[in-house]
Amino acid sequence: MAKKWVYYFGKSKSEGGSQMKEILGGKGANLAEMIKIGIPVPPGYTISTEVCKYYFDHGEKYPEEIKAQVEEAMELLEKDTGKKFGDKNDPLLVSVRSGAAISMPGMMDTILNLGLNDKTVEAMAEKSGNPRFAYDSYRRFMQMFGDVALGLPHAKFEKALDTVKEEKGVKLDTELDTEDLKRVIELYKKVYQEEGKAFPQDPHEQLWDSINAVFGSWMNPRAIKYRQLNGIGEGTLLGTAVNVVAMAYGNMGDDSGTGVAFTRNPSTGEKKYYGEYLKNAQGEDVVAGIRTPKDLEDMKNDWPGVYDELIKVFEKLEKHYKDMQDVEFTVEKGKLYLLQTRNAKRTAAASVRVAVDMVEEGMIDKKTAVTRVTPEQVERMLHPFFIPEEKAKAEVLTKALPASPGAATGKAVFHSKTAEEWVERGEKVILVRLETSPEDIGGMAAAEGVLTARGGMTSHAAVVARGMGEPAVCGAESLDVSEEKKQFKVSGKVVKEGDWISIDGTTGELMLGNIKTVKPDGLEGPVAKILEWASEFQRLGVRTNADTPKDAQIAKQFGATGIGLCRTEHMFFEADRIPIVRRMIVSRKLEDRQKALNELEPIQQEDFYGILKAMDGLTVTIRFIDPPLHEFVPKEKEAQARLAKELNIELDELAEIVNELHEFNPMLGHRGVRLSITYPEIAVMQTRAVIKAAIDLKKEGLNPIPEIMIPLVGMESELKTLRELVTTEADKLIKEAGVDVEYHVGTMIEVPRGALTADEIAKHADFFSFGTNDLTQMTFGFSRDDAGKFIKEYLDRGILEFDPFKKLDRDGVGQLVKMAVEKGRKTNPNIHLGICGEHGGDPYSIEFCHMVGLDYVSCSPYRVPVARLAAAQAAINNG
Amino acid sequence: MAKKWVYYFGKSKSEGGSQMKEILGGKGANLAEMIKIGIPVPPGYTISTEVCKYYFDHGEKYPEEIKAQVEEAMELLEKDTGKKFGDKNDPLLVSVRSGAAISMPGMMDTILNLGLNDKTVEAMAEKSGNPRFAYDSYRRFMQMFGDVALGLPHAKFEKALDTVKEEKGVKLDTELDTEDLKRVIELYKKVYQEEGKAFPQDPHEQLWDSINAVFGSWMNPRAIKYRQLNGIGEGTLLGTAVNVVAMAYGNMGDDSGTGVAFTRNPSTGEKKYYGEYLKNAQGEDVVAGIRTPKDLEDMKNDWPGVYDELIKVFEKLEKHYKDMQDVEFTVEKGKLYLLQTRNAKRTAAASVRVAVDMVEEGMIDKKTAVTRVTPEQVERMLHPFFIPEEKAKAEVLTKALPASPGAATGKAVFHSKTAEEWVERGEKVILVRLETSPEDIGGMAAAEGVLTARGGMTSHAAVVARGMGEPAVCGAESLDVSEEKKQFKVSGKVVKEGDWISIDGTTGELMLGNIKTVKPDGLEGPVAKILEWASEFQRLGVRTNADTPKDAQIAKQFGATGIGLCRTEHMFFEADRIPIVRRMIVSRKLEDRQKALNELEPIQQEDFYGILKAMDGLTVTIRFIDPPLHEFVPKEKEAQARLAKELNIELDELAEIVNELHEFNPMLGHRGVRLSITYPEIAVMQTRAVIKAAIDLKKEGLNPIPEIMIPLVGMESELKTLRELVTTEADKLIKEAGVDVEYHVGTMIEVPRGALTADEIAKHADFFSFGTNDLTQMTFGFSRDDAGKFIKEYLDRGILEFDPFKKLDRDGVGQLVKMAVEKGRKTNPNIHLGICGEHGGDPYSIEFCHMVGLDYVSCSPYRVPVARLAAAQAAINNG
Repeated sequence: MAKKWVYYFGKSKSEGGSQMKEILGGKGANLAEMIKIGIPVPPGYTISTEVCKYYFDHGEKYPEEIKAQVEEAMELLEKDTGKKFGDKNDPLLVSVRSGAAISMPGMMDTILNLGLNDKTVEAMAEKSGNPRFAYDSYRRFMQMFGDVALGLPHAKFEKALDTVKEEKGVKLDTELDTEDLKRVIELYKKVYQEEGKAFPQDPHEQLWDSINAVFGSWMNPRAIKYRQLNGIGEGTLLGTAVNVVAMAYGNMGDDSGTGVAFTRNPSTGEKKYYGEYLKNAQGEDVVAGIRTPKDLEDMKNDWPGVYDELIKVFEKLEKHYKDMQDVEFTVEKGKLYLLQTRNAKRTAAASVRVAVDMVEEGMIDKKTAVTRVTPEQVERMLHPFFIPEEKAKAEVLTKALPASPGAATGKAVFHSKTAEEWVERGEKVILVRLETSPEDIGGMAAAEGVLTARGGMTSHAAVVARGMGEPAVCGAESLDVSEEKKQFKVSGKVVKEGDWISIDGTTGELMLGNIKTVKPDGLEGPVAKILEWASEFQRLGVRTNADTPKDAQIAKQFGATGIGLCRTEHMFFEADRIPIVRRMIVSRKLEDRQKALNELEPIQQEDFYGILKAMDGLTVTIRFIDPPLHEFVPKEKEAQARLAKELNIELDELAEIVNELHEFNPMLGHRGVRLSITYPEIAVMQTRAVIKAAIDLKKEGLNPIPEIMIPLVGMESELKTLRELVTTEADKLIKEAGVDVEYHVGTMIEVPRGALTADEIAKHADFFSFGTNDLTQMTFGFSRDDAGKFIKEYLDRGILEFDPFKKLDRDGVGQLVKMAVEKGRKTNPNIHLGICGEHGGDPYSIEFCHMVGLDYVSCSPYRVPVARLAAAQAAINNG
Repeated sequence: MAKKWVYYFGKSKSEGGSQMKEILGGKGANLAEMIKIGIPVPPGYTISTEVCKYYFDHGEKYPEEIKAQVEEAMELLEKDTGKKFGDKNDPLLVSVRSGAAISMPGMMDTILNLGLNDKTVEAMAEKSGNPRFAYDSYRRFMQMFGDVALGLPHAKFEKALDTVKEEKGVKLDTELDTEDLKRVIELYKKVYQEEGKAFPQDPHEQLWDSINAVFGSWMNPRAIKYRQLNGIGEGTLLGTAVNVVAMAYGNMGDDSGTGVAFTRNPSTGEKKYYGEYLKNAQGEDVVAGIRTPKDLEDMKNDWPGVYDELIKVFEKLEKHYKDMQDVEFTVEKGKLYLLQTRNAKRTAAASVRVAVDMVEEGMIDKKTAVTRVTPEQVERMLHPFFIPEEKAKAEVLTKALPASPGAATGKAVFHSKTAEEWVERGEKVILVRLETSPEDIGGMAAAEGVLTARGGMTSHAAVVARGMGEPAVCGAESLDVSEEKKQFKVSGKVVKEGDWISIDGTTGELMLGNIKTVKPDGLEGPVAKILEWASEFQRLGVRTNADTPKDAQIAKQFGATGIGLCRTEHMFFEADRIPIVRRMIVSRKLEDRQKALNELEPIQQEDFYGILKAMDGLTVTIRFIDPPLHEFVPKEKEAQARLAKELNIELDELAEIVNELHEFNPMLGHRGVRLSITYPEIAVMQTRAVIKAAIDLKKEGLNPIPEIMIPLVGMESELKTLRELVTTEADKLIKEAGVDVEYHVGTMIEVPRGALTADEIAKHADFFSFGTNDLTQMTFGFSRDDAGKFIKEYLDRGILEFDPFKKLDRDGVGQLVKMAVEKGRKTNPNIHLGICGEHGGDPYSIEFCHMVGLDYVSCSPYRVPVARLAAAQAAINNG
């Protein structure tokens, strides 16, 4: 028996159904499904997505059997409608529409009224009693078909239309009468001829040209680009289907019409029907926007019977699909036809509310509700956004990286000190910098948002802003920022200190002016419910990256169950410490360094005390000093002069020390564990500070659980050395104190060699935490501070499917993670495994972490709710 | 039956043999072997290396059975010598010596005359008829035993001896008579007492204390360090053995003596016995150097019988061991005893000559000869060296990285221009720089050698110097170089422009003054033979890294069978090109860039023409542009001003462009294939230049085989894009020309992700070439330009066994190489595999390349002979 390529739906039979989306596309599957459950739908048939695949696999040829199957379906359609395709008296007209399994703009969409020609148009004129309508439809079909199916230039059709209007001296299409339209049709035929084509009078030829056009559009650049941008990889979908459906006419008079509707409010999620319709109109007219549609409410009066039927349809659809629907319908002489139904697009707020309501209505279970809300929607619920109408009016100056989500508005300032001063006196500011460094922390904290000209998604500005939950737009390469002149130029505009600007960290846009923002409810109401339910399904723990008790507190409120990354060096930058830190760094002699370290120890101890206290009973992973030491000393001559004076050494000597610290590739330089090996006294100081803080808390009856994490380990010998050093000091202190403190020692896996030799390293590690920022940098050989430029081009050209600093590269970086998980567990079955890179807050990456069997992810405090939902969804989707 | 721990050799039986080195050590195994083949050796026994292992595995305890086995062996020894250990009339004295399977300084070496005490010394005095000798021996034994076996302070013994000499008013030991020596012995006993020990009168106690000391010394820091430095990993050896051997006395009168001899000349390899001896002396006296030994030739007259016997022993030994031997012997009252034989240490020249001679003598086969010469020895034969006596007199200022082998001497200059000018006028110079950049090529070529203060084994200076075959010492961190003041400071000395300095690139030493160098024969004579034989065994091909026809020619003479790496960007730096290259780089518009590229094309074409011609019929792998573009533009303001003028643009604009090109981590930045993706026009130009050159040669009847190599590929999509770009252009040109040109397109594997996804990448690659410099950088996360500082500390502390930039890290980097080989071959069984990183010239790394199945290695021209030998040895040693 021949393979089935065409599926019929109508009175005679309905061969498809909603479970067949893959081969019928969403539209076709739902039309068939609606017929099955007794909803009025015009009959038709679907040419399957498998035909599309066959078509492209075989050099744009169709399977042999298809002609016969389409003819057979067309005969059934004629039988069910009682009309005949191409008939001169009662012609069957059809629409041809594309429809893949996933809704996808970019492909050819719709051709209406197919089947019209010089003969059938007369029959239509007579049957409808409205010749003008018939010829206008014909004219439109010719234009649509020529433009969309044959690729003739749109402008030529417009010109022909204009010619007739000019001749007649009118301005609007509607001012043309039947005879004028006939003249337009003549001119249109000439357009076809000029382009070397004839308008096909044969409806079958019209049909096949249209089918070719739909399938062809699957591979057009817009469609390919859309799939790329939306992460729909090659091979995910078979292709598009083609739906051929009998026309229903909403323009047969005042008892006819067309409309769209939602079964609930798509903005708020409120359980209230929502929609609009036009009397005596076809779908196109609604889109054209010439007439103002009526509110669905009005239909109660206009067509009470149709309204009641529609409401019943809504109830049936929601009950059947167990989700909010968005439908298209047509009323032909008082008879309702549904032309499409699909799960409705909705706002974040609506999405959450509908999911929660439906659980309460008993329509879906909690598990389903948890999968109905996307992590991005939860994210949006947590950050302020611009009032859409206000934003639409604003001038967008440039679009750069959406580095930290949320909307912010303020006066542009170019120095952190200025930011702090202005905020002190009550101003709102946006801090604009070429790039930020740890010295900008104060200014960033004061500002409403941060804008940088350089740096990627994991640049200092981006990481710190996300940690603070503050909007940021980074890597705005088109900005010509002069910190000296306190201004930036972009697209020919100059923005000076004090000018109002607005940034949208969710989209990456920079706008001129003061745009009003709204703060959503946050974790109140239905979102809280969804997250509560998510906890029932997630297997991965969600910890947070936090360096201060305040951050720890926020993350805990968001549901973090520990700290996965506490960066100790951020503590070094505060005003009371940095002089001591610098003194330590420039010390040439161990004893001088030790003196500085002795001063730092009680300060660090206090920091750790605060954080461990805030996370009482939860694990706190403390990373030992990581960045290269030159990050702590000033580069500018002036600042060096001040420092030299402070330290009481010659400027020359200081300059020489700073020069010695200089590195060509600091990312691959003297940092991480390498510092702890060459300056073991720093690691000893940090060990003492951690353990003494824990001892104090233990004595107060609390339960601190510190984990000491060594960064940048690539060799077994490194961790072995550090573990010995740490445990020797820690055990001594614990023994002296006579209290029982639980602590663990582990390492980051962020150097490829660390992953490759994880079996050896695991012998000395209680835990691994994957530092996927660095691991991505080294696995790709991409410096995150520099790669912005070419990564953008790589994405544009499709060489990269996505930015690997945003989403974990499963094939490369992920392979190393998987390898390290397997090797690590092989030699140390009890090893605890987590991730603390920026990927720990990204849903796609979190799913991977779930799949490879990590124990937890760690992310910035404001990402914790997002990560919790993503973790639950990963568990649900991956069993 | 109890495990055997002790092995006897002597008249009664000889339980060991040379094949048992692992458990008897080299010394013990050879003593047993000599007895077996009838060579006179004093009897003795060996306590095996397994005892040493047991000792350390069991907290420094011995196996139970050992006491009995030692006693049994001692009884046999008494039987064979007819003396008794500790006997008051005819005491058996023994020597105790360590001996592992590999000769190893750092452990306790020898204790002689063990068994002497207050009683036995009298017997010895009487038996020898020389009381002074007996008491001097006793005194020495006490001192040696106290110092070596018990760890008593050496200085105290010296002081005691001095006391007696002062009392007597003499200066030399030899001026003390028997009574004086007895007094010394009394004072020595006091030293023991003061240190809380008693000198053991019991010979058995002496024996066990000495055995303990030998085993203990296996783990002393010097021995551990030695093993680390020589790459003898933990677990390679079981431990040391202890040899207890009956004393033979060379100091029994004029018919006694002791000496050392070589069966051939160890300096030249000439087949002529070589050695020296002292009459009436013990081993110690030869070492002490108080008396001048006699030449072996003299023995013909002194003791003709002994001489003849010794010659027979030499012949027997060489025939038996099939290698040149170095022996220790003692003659006791006209009777010859061999105390040791081993394969003789020899110079590079001797090593080569002996191996070749022995093949010609029919003693060994070619295969054995090839394994007898080390790659380092071949290397030494190729480079000039300092006359050892001259060098010994020179002051070593510092020791840094031996970046490019050979000796060089010249006047210090600090700028490349100066180097060129001075050389022009007939001076010899050493170029001293903080670091070199491509702008220094001219100066480097002019200089005798290069000295840099920064940078590692793969820094620019090191790589270029090795390519030029020019000595270089790099990364001399202790040098305080001021290029401005034209001087450097080191160890309190100031060296100014024009001062003579000498550098030894083989050892990394920097010396003051003009030291004479010698140039060896190079690839003449026996070395050529060895390399010819090597070719019969090597499976790996050896190509060269060469950027000029001259380098290609040199490498070809050295036996290179192709070019594995031709760096096209080096060509960009020559004076006639760099202005065009810079114009290309600063072009904001494609058309400007294209104009510059059009000018470059014929120049590059000419370069490729020359190289392809020089390597006619051999593969030439041409790497497309690799370094970040900012390397081509000047950083200094002045140079920028000049360039701006040249390019006819504003300095501000140029500075802005340079600033845009700046990168935080250039190693991980916009370079390699990333340039070819963002500026495809550069790749097109390079393709055209390569293919057009090949077409021209083909038309001339030659056979060019260019391979186009894309650097830094980490993703399949990158290579796919480039391959399309290259083949489209190349095929077009070839078709137009109407000639048949063979060319290949492949990639470097130097980014970890490239190795991890090699199966995907291989689909688009005709070959992979492993760029292990970058692969090592990224796998470890070590910037080779910055890591020098901490790598040194890592090596010192044993955290790294060796510098991974010198020897390929098999566990980490090697794992990626192996993975890529397997994955690459899986999807593309015909893929050709090579290595072009610096490791391609290192024997340890070459062996690994052989083991994982690469097809070839590529190295700098002067390393080609070394690599050929290493490749042959790898094949021989790994079947």
